[in-house]
Amino acid sequence: MAIRIKINNSSDDLGLGTKGSDRNMNKDGSFNMERLGDPKFRSYEIFHELITMSWTKFIFLILIGYLIVNFLFAGIFFFIGVEHLSGIDQNISETRKFFEAFFFSSQTLTTLGYGRVAPTGMAASSISAIESMIGLLSFALATGLLYGRFSRPQAKLLYSKNAIIAPYKGITGLMFRVANRRRNQLLEVEVELNLSYFEKDSKTRSFIKLELERTKIALFPLSWTVVHPIDENSPLYGITENEINEMKMELIVMLKAFDDTFSQTIYSRSSFKAAEIKMGRKFIPMFNVLENGKTQLDLRLIDAMEKVELPQQKILIAGN
Amino acid sequence: MAIRIKINNSSDDLGLGTKGSDRNMNKDGSFNMERLGDPKFRSYEIFHELITMSWTKFIFLILIGYLIVNFLFAGIFFFIGVEHLSGIDQNISETRKFFEAFFFSSQTLTTLGYGRVAPTGMAASSISAIESMIGLLSFALATGLLYGRFSRPQAKLLYSKNAIIAPYKGITGLMFRVANRRRNQLLEVEVELNLSYFEKDSKTRSFIKLELERTKIALFPLSWTVVHPIDENSPLYGITENEINEMKMELIVMLKAFDDTFSQTIYSRSSFKAAEIKMGRKFIPMFNVLENGKTQLDLRLIDAMEKVELPQQKILIAGN
Amino acid sequence: MAIRIKINNSSDDLGLGTKGSDRNMNKDGSFNMERLGDPKFRSYEIFHELITMSWTKFIFLILIGYLIVNFLFAGIFFFIGVEHLSGIDQNISETRKFFEAFFFSSQTLTTLGYGRVAPTGMAASSISAIESMIGLLSFALATGLLYGRFSRPQAKLLYSKNAIIAPYKGITGLMFRVANRRRNQLLEVEVELNLSYFEKDSKTRSFIKLELERTKIALFPLSWTVVHPIDENSPLYGITENEINEMKMELIVMLKAFDDTFSQTIYSRSSFKAAEIKMGRKFIPMFNVLENGKTQLDLRLIDAMEKVELPQQKILIAGN
Amino acid sequence: MAIRIKINNSSDDLGLGTKGSDRNMNKDGSFNMERLGDPKFRSYEIFHELITMSWTKFIFLILIGYLIVNFLFAGIFFFIGVEHLSGIDQNISETRKFFEAFFFSSQTLTTLGYGRVAPTGMAASSISAIESMIGLLSFALATGLLYGRFSRPQAKLLYSKNAIIAPYKGITGLMFRVANRRRNQLLEVEVELNLSYFEKDSKTRSFIKLELERTKIALFPLSWTVVHPIDENSPLYGITENEINEMKMELIVMLKAFDDTFSQTIYSRSSFKAAEIKMGRKFIPMFNVLENGKTQLDLRLIDAMEKVELPQQKILIAGN
Repeated sequence: MAIRIKINNSSDDLGLGTKGSDRNMNKDGSFNMERLGDPKFRSYEIFHELITMSWTKFIFLILIGYLIVNFLFAGIFFFIGVEHLSGIDQNISETRKFFEAFFFSSQTLTTLGYGRVAPTGMAASSISAIESMIGLLSFALATGLLYGRFSRPQAKLLYSKNAIIAPYKGITGLMFRVANRRRNQLLEVEVELNLSYFEKDSKTRSFIKLELERTKIALFPLSWTVVHPIDENSPLYGITENEINEMKMELIVMLKAFDDTFSQTIYSRSSFKAAEIKMGRKFIPMFNVLENGKTQLDLRLIDAMEKVELPQQKILIAGN
Repeated sequence: MAIRIKINNSSDDLGLGTKGSDRNMNKDGSFNMERLGDPKFRSYEIFHELITMSWTKFIFLILIGYLIVNFLFAGIFFFIGVEHLSGIDQNISETRKFFEAFFFSSQTLTTLGYGRVAPTGMAASSISAIESMIGLLSFALATGLLYGRFSRPQAKLLYSKNAIIAPYKGITGLMFRVANRRRNQLLEVEVELNLSYFEKDSKTRSFIKLELERTKIALFPLSWTVVHPIDENSPLYGITENEINEMKMELIVMLKAFDDTFSQTIYSRSSFKAAEIKMGRKFIPMFNVLENGKTQLDLRLIDAMEKVELPQQKILIAGN
Repeated sequence: MAIRIKINNSSDDLGLGTKGSDRNMNKDGSFNMERLGDPKFRSYEIFHELITMSWTKFIFLILIGYLIVNFLFAGIFFFIGVEHLSGIDQNISETRKFFEAFFFSSQTLTTLGYGRVAPTGMAASSISAIESMIGLLSFALATGLLYGRFSRPQAKLLYSKNAIIAPYKGITGLMFRVANRRRNQLLEVEVELNLSYFEKDSKTRSFIKLELERTKIALFPLSWTVVHPIDENSPLYGITENEINEMKMELIVMLKAFDDTFSQTIYSRSSFKAAEIKMGRKFIPMFNVLENGKTQLDLRLIDAMEKVELPQQKILIAGN
Repeated sequence: MAIRIKINNSSDDLGLGTKGSDRNMNKDGSFNMERLGDPKFRSYEIFHELITMSWTKFIFLILIGYLIVNFLFAGIFFFIGVEHLSGIDQNISETRKFFEAFFFSSQTLTTLGYGRVAPTGMAASSISAIESMIGLLSFALATGLLYGRFSRPQAKLLYSKNAIIAPYKGITGLMFRVANRRRNQLLEVEVELNLSYFEKDSKTRSFIKLELERTKIALFPLSWTVVHPIDENSPLYGITENEINEMKMELIVMLKAFDDTFSQTIYSRSSFKAAEIKMGRKFIPMFNVLENGKTQLDLRLIDAMEKVELPQQKILIAGN
């Protein structure tokens, strides 16, 4: 039951290091890693965070920021004295005065400036001049952030949940399926598949690049079944499900494509852990030709597969 | 009348699949395909849609959006009571009150804030604070969308309506013409030409890459006649018009260039169906040298061609 | 006095065509060409124009646009009747009423909205709602245009006015000098030099790529003297100044670099006409090392050259 | 004690010139150079400056600009006469009148337009129409600048302070360490290492490219120890610390990577002077595997190294 991994084909370690746990890369392509000693405050880091966070969090942050800034300036105007804001009835309660200051602040920050309430005197006028300035700049920032959020390159690729070992041209092949989750066109799609594993009794992770049936497609309107043919030169030749688990195998997928909409190169990564590699399955096609001559792709079938018997020959060799 | 397609040169299927109808790619480079199971709501999808839709639709959407938001806020202000909006005569009809609320809303959303009408009291003030905020953010979004619409890479290439088989250096050649529809400069223009066809009695589409006289030009101020020389190594050697139709041939053009204005790589695609491939035609030149020494390109002549007799030799072989 | 141009090295025609006058490319890299049949109105064309025109023209256009829109809306408000604009004294002259409408329009378009003058009634309110909307969108557009103007890739390279034939390592070399006119860093600078000429009594322009001493430099903080060594394999071997003129030679420079500031690939082109190619000159260095150890580059010396005698051997051969 | 630099491997001079002081490149990748004859005023130069300057300087400039523009317009309104600004009490002192004009200007520039003070008459109205226009355009510019500042490609890479000569696979190796200072992902990281030095008694700087153990990694979540193996083919074979200093060696690092967040290629440069190259040190690992299976990278350990004895064999040869 010797493992037939050929070391002469062993690829670089991809920059992931040769130590590490069962999973180097998470399903979404992020790394199973932590960092210490990061700089605390950097404009780019903040921008990066604001660009990549969820929309819910982003909108929430903007609203909170708007409230905080208004409360702050309301406090300042209140401290200066609302008698310096013309248009406010001086006989109302302190709480209501504060709220008048608050709404005046919001009208200044957004450069609304109804003018029912308006500053008089140096202090209030200066503060409102500063606040409107801050308002404009914050808005400029928000404009950039919104544009950045929308236009940044994002490959949204749909990978099948499992990689499978299925019959392939008389032998077997390791396969997974990938489709574009978006309606935009991806061009010149390239894929690289690496296998990471632990040799028996070794604590060092090894990496090996798997040869693919094809590594590039020019157009990507449909789904793509990426295939590593398991022939005699494959490190997976004669592999059993047990061995896959024992060697803590991990398939690391790296995909690169060109997004025509914004002329951007995009990268996508994913990984399949040992438990996600299934033997004796085959994929059910995701597309069929309609009567009107169009080809229809059904993204909901990305994981659709059925049991299948693998070629006898293969199993014999694996049983040696 | 055997088809002389050489399979050893057969290229990948381009990612278009080997099944499908007479036309894989539409004239404008989009695919003759449908999708099922797309996500319904995604920020990128919406952005993509807003960036790529027609200007008429885009402007219409913005106007409709502006009206809807104003009606909504007008409704809220009306519900709160227009007596909380100072400056509105309380003796007017309900309809007119609603319209006063509507115009106040528009003055708030755009941060105009004349102040003839201004909010008083907590409720109206809060709503207007929120509305002006929404106005600013919507405007930020519109700024990004407008910039995105203008600056996104778009190759506007003018292809001749027909691909022709014309005399070429003693033999014949399959040709089409392409020119830059825009005044901007395209650099390092590369083209790839693929032929898709059905073998007789086969339901599987085959793909073959056609060799070109030249695949790249450094500068593109004029038109470019892309030529596939039909020599003995060409899969089209001795082809007849009947065969082109019977085999449901489709020429798939993929063009790549660099747009200097925004430092963007752009892609353009087009296709010629069997019926769009004409034998025995030649193109009439699109440019001539003016007296002042300038070269003049006339884009209106892109489709200009005339009948021509193909070299005898060719016809003999085709008749074998 | 036969011309020793070797045709086996003849390069593609660069996409410039083989007909044409003495000058294909202008000094600034634009083409000596005209176009007919361009589409009249296209969003991208307009954007392209607005992005690439001079600042003077751009500012002027914005001011004119601002004036026109305001006059238009002033006209509408005036037509509706300034009695629907509260705050305007109804006893003033018609001219002054128009100007009040004009300034009200400007306060609406910029969303200033002082409110001293404010609309009352459906018609005036509706128009001002539309105008403020238009104002916001125009401003959004201006934001995009300004950003586009500033950030678009522009290689500002300083070429020497003349290409020279100077002594070079025992033989001679055709040289020109290029420096970065900007303080930003250009990386991975690549250059290609093509010679275009007319064979004696030929009306067809030929193109030939000239071999360079080096075609790429990694960093570009100083000037770069691009050298084509005129050895026995050079098409310029033994050339005389007369022949350069008779053959209407034109040197076409194509330069490509990477601008680190905006992660953009930039292209630059220039050309040297026959009259701009000088024999028997050499360049005076543009930089020297300062006492503080810094290297100083003086851009004003880009054209500095002095007369020099070319190696005897060379002249003998040319005289054959 | 002859220097064993092999000249057959000598690389291009990188564009840095062969003259110059001990240090061509500063630690931060900028060049030790000055320029003369730069154009004084160019839109791109100013933009470049505004994009790359520090945040403190940038914010300061904006505030100063805001103040200056307001003072200017305040001056104009004051000169026209504040009696043309309705809402200003005409009985106040000249100083207070000026300040009223100043605050009115700020309310106009930001398009706040409270309207407590509002222009009347042609002159004041015209000026405020112009000022609000300028305000909008300045704001448009600020929007672009802020977006440009945040989104421009910036590789923030952390290099170890020293390059070291450490034991490496039986021989020794010249090494330095590099890590991504940011949380974003860098992909396809490539590095090139060049050695610049003066031959004994030579005033001309020579450049040689050093072969690396590996020049590229696909992913960069951890640190990367870049290694030049000092084998018999290395120009550093048998080098001593004295020779490093005498030859005024400088290691020039050029790194290129792809930043996924904005689809940008980024470049980073650094240099190690002779005094920063330490012999007989080795790096202490920067990462370790946590109990939860995650790998932890500690950026604070980038410079962590300890003394080590170099392989005997190496020292013997160096002593020849």
